[in-house]
Amino acid sequence: MRKSIATVSVSGTLPEKLTAIAAAGFDGFELFENDLVACPLSPEDIRRMAADLGLRVELYQPFRDFEAVPADRLAANLRRAEHKFRLMNRLGADLLLVCSNVSPQAIDDDALAAEQLRVLAERAAEHGIRIAYEALAWGRHVDDYLRSWRIVRMAGHPALGVCLDSFHILSKGTDPGGIEAIPGEKIFFLQLADAPRLTMDTLQWSRHYRCFPGQGDFDLAGFTQHVRNAGYRGPLSLEVFNDVFRRSDPVRTAADAMLSLRFLEDGTAPELTDFAYVELATGPDGDRLRRLVEVLGFDRARLVEGGDAAELRAVGIATPDPLAADAHVAALSAPAHVPDGTRVVFCPAGPGDSTIDHVALTAPFAEASLWCRCVLGLRPHESLELPDPYGLVRSRAMTGAGGRVMVALNMADTPSSVPWQHVAVACDDVVDMARRLTAAGEPPLRIPGNYYDDLDARFPGAPDLRGTGVLYDRADDGEFLHLYTATIGRVFFEVVQRIGGYSGYGAANTPVRLAAQHGHKMRPE
Amino acid sequence: MRKSIATVSVSGTLPEKLTAIAAAGFDGFELFENDLVACPLSPEDIRRMAADLGLRVELYQPFRDFEAVPADRLAANLRRAEHKFRLMNRLGADLLLVCSNVSPQAIDDDALAAEQLRVLAERAAEHGIRIAYEALAWGRHVDDYLRSWRIVRMAGHPALGVCLDSFHILSKGTDPGGIEAIPGEKIFFLQLADAPRLTMDTLQWSRHYRCFPGQGDFDLAGFTQHVRNAGYRGPLSLEVFNDVFRRSDPVRTAADAMLSLRFLEDGTAPELTDFAYVELATGPDGDRLRRLVEVLGFDRARLVEGGDAAELRAVGIATPDPLAADAHVAALSAPAHVPDGTRVVFCPAGPGDSTIDHVALTAPFAEASLWCRCVLGLRPHESLELPDPYGLVRSRAMTGAGGRVMVALNMADTPSSVPWQHVAVACDDVVDMARRLTAAGEPPLRIPGNYYDDLDARFPGAPDLRGTGVLYDRADDGEFLHLYTATIGRVFFEVVQRIGGYSGYGAANTPVRLAAQHGHKMRPE
Repeated sequence: MRKSIATVSVSGTLPEKLTAIAAAGFDGFELFENDLVACPLSPEDIRRMAADLGLRVELYQPFRDFEAVPADRLAANLRRAEHKFRLMNRLGADLLLVCSNVSPQAIDDDALAAEQLRVLAERAAEHGIRIAYEALAWGRHVDDYLRSWRIVRMAGHPALGVCLDSFHILSKGTDPGGIEAIPGEKIFFLQLADAPRLTMDTLQWSRHYRCFPGQGDFDLAGFTQHVRNAGYRGPLSLEVFNDVFRRSDPVRTAADAMLSLRFLEDGTAPELTDFAYVELATGPDGDRLRRLVEVLGFDRARLVEGGDAAELRAVGIATPDPLAADAHVAALSAPAHVPDGTRVVFCPAGPGDSTIDHVALTAPFAEASLWCRCVLGLRPHESLELPDPYGLVRSRAMTGAGGRVMVALNMADTPSSVPWQHVAVACDDVVDMARRLTAAGEPPLRIPGNYYDDLDARFPGAPDLRGTGVLYDRADDGEFLHLYTATIGRVFFEVVQRIGGYSGYGAANTPVRLAAQHGHKMRPE
Repeated sequence: MRKSIATVSVSGTLPEKLTAIAAAGFDGFELFENDLVACPLSPEDIRRMAADLGLRVELYQPFRDFEAVPADRLAANLRRAEHKFRLMNRLGADLLLVCSNVSPQAIDDDALAAEQLRVLAERAAEHGIRIAYEALAWGRHVDDYLRSWRIVRMAGHPALGVCLDSFHILSKGTDPGGIEAIPGEKIFFLQLADAPRLTMDTLQWSRHYRCFPGQGDFDLAGFTQHVRNAGYRGPLSLEVFNDVFRRSDPVRTAADAMLSLRFLEDGTAPELTDFAYVELATGPDGDRLRRLVEVLGFDRARLVEGGDAAELRAVGIATPDPLAADAHVAALSAPAHVPDGTRVVFCPAGPGDSTIDHVALTAPFAEASLWCRCVLGLRPHESLELPDPYGLVRSRAMTGAGGRVMVALNMADTPSSVPWQHVAVACDDVVDMARRLTAAGEPPLRIPGNYYDDLDARFPGAPDLRGTGVLYDRADDGEFLHLYTATIGRVFFEVVQRIGGYSGYGAANTPVRLAAQHGHKMRPE
């Protein structure tokens, strides 16, 4: 299917947007009116620029508050439409998005809406233009795709069809199954946007939190399948706006957009059985890292001399078919590294289970979770907000199907963040490990006595861990003990002990850990 | 009244927070448990530090999910409480905040809640501690202050009272008038937070959008008056958390917090009759600025040689009593400048009305609006979000009682913002002014032809302004024509013509203006 994106979805001036959209490999775009109005290029220049970039103007949008109005208003609205038709002819655009009326003057009368849309379509057709009518989730009367389709069917004009937008449908919890009852040729356009599940005003939710398929909580694959089953043959077009994309590099945003669409079309994911190894650059701390790894008994670390500071360079992930996994990455045209720069290498499983419990990365949240979802097929867990002394850290675990591959993504919204990656190593007795680390001159991160007082209050019967540097969590599914090593360069280790079926990563303790790491950074050792 | 603030309201480690709170002149603080737990200082050390800083521990908070539970759970909860009582004795804290139970296990039984809170109060009293019971807006059963007060009255224990929190009451739209029926001595604590009116999940609203009195939309003055009328004699305590404060300088946040409380207590504002003048540093552009001011016929500019770039330095505001206005600023201990550095000078009115229509400042939004509200008594209008090519600009007009003093605050959420201050000068014929500026070699900011095409479509009968650089807006109350000069250093002028009663500032045109300014910046002149 052709791939398209709305110009409002990426940052910059209109020429910057189009250049980024073309570079990402899109076939076309939706031209957002405000982008045109603010652009010094004439419509003819924009048309030429798009053609030179190999981009088709799939849609001009939006045209608002047209239908179901009193007769005198209709004349003014048609005058407005004629302006747009002439403009679209200059642009070489032949499809206009008409959003359902949100004005208090709109009349609750489907027959009237249909009749006025029929007139509009008739006028449009004279200019070689078609109308795609969309039910906004906050439309005054028409706020549901079945109703917009009923009106379109009632109007019965070949130049009038519906536009379906996943956000407007899924945000209301409407069953998208009914889409299959619409003849494919009457679905003139398909707009896709994912979003996190939030309880808030739908208009604000839409304006600030839309995201690319795979970044949110909606079932975009299922939604798109319904539209394909209906026989739709137009483009998949992303209409996404949020506060982050508005200020991000348009080239990166457009590349992410394309990745999300390719994943949506493909839908497969490699089978991941386990972590295989982590590769760490040693920076100037080779000796210290080697000693630490030895004390930890951690046999899955590959230390590579070099770099300006110790850091995580690559993660090896075991899969039954590394070649197929590489082909999956190639098919998505995705980079072979997480957006924080950590390379991922697919390889056959080594002997036995690895002791890598999870890997924590600090990376732009939306980008990194999209990459992990599309490339690794990891599923996101709930997103958490964890305070550190100087801001909020957003944290989200993503796990593979078997549960053996877990990546924790962290993104600090603070001027003095703790941008440290870490590798969590499993062990059977973390208290003993704390002793061994201390004996080896690498004591665990020191945890305040107040934390242990609070632990006593919260968890009757919790082990007495005071002075060990070991943190504790308890949930319905089990217990979790963990400690942190000092930070070496840009990386540190966590040692974790799971008891019972505890499936989390001790997020409740993260604020205490972050505060301790800040304190440690500020005090000379 | 004593003034207090919760440690969660400012950024940093606990010692950093306390230092900032003391520096701002607070009498005490609420100790937020998480701040204690993450702090390496012992409770005794914290007590000493607070005493050394002259701060009283007004409240320890929060204690959760205590009341209205099955009998077996009560024992565990009392054990938890005993831990806190011992801790509070070490801290020298004698008031514990108990939030209404949010757990699904809580039983909907006020008599049971009262009985269990009575037991808790009895135990607390043995440690010299009192309990302040607060109805959370999202409490499982108790979510309303009248109900929490009913339970407290039913319990009838001298060590048990209510805590009132303005957010929990005003966010639900509850009438705070009933507070006056509570005996003042049974109101053990008062937490104040303002918030913008948002339609969203109350818990998320509370966690991310609370702000200081005067920064939001709640009537905090009226609320506080009810509590004072009830006879409350405890401290005014701010419990505010939002994503911005978490990452801001704690010293500035605490100073703003104190300003908001002083304003809340004082409540007066100077009478502002008009702008009197603006003072501009010329930087290296003295000649150009003088010429521009002459062409504009703008007689209220005071140009001062110096500075590295032309910029707005000060705004003179006319008031019948400049000395009283200065005394107001002194009483608030407020700085004499807006947080962007622009000084405000109160002075007697000059002859005739000034031609200063409004002044636009780029400043941290919450800080600047608080300053304008408290120091100048300006009232905020609706906050707008205006896209520029590289992000969102938040914009808000604030006007004085007579309507003659209008400040537009802008804050760009973008990496490449347009941080330019500007002065809007009123005139009777902005199109003629455009001609004169062009003739003088200072043509207005060039506006794209696409904008004028769109204007034709939107406003039948709008004047033909193509090629003039003049923008246009129309609202129910009138019409607005305006143009922008080139930017000189860090400042530019707007020339505005109001027709009819138009009361806005052309915000609908801001995205086009911002895009044009970006384009101008990038192209050599």
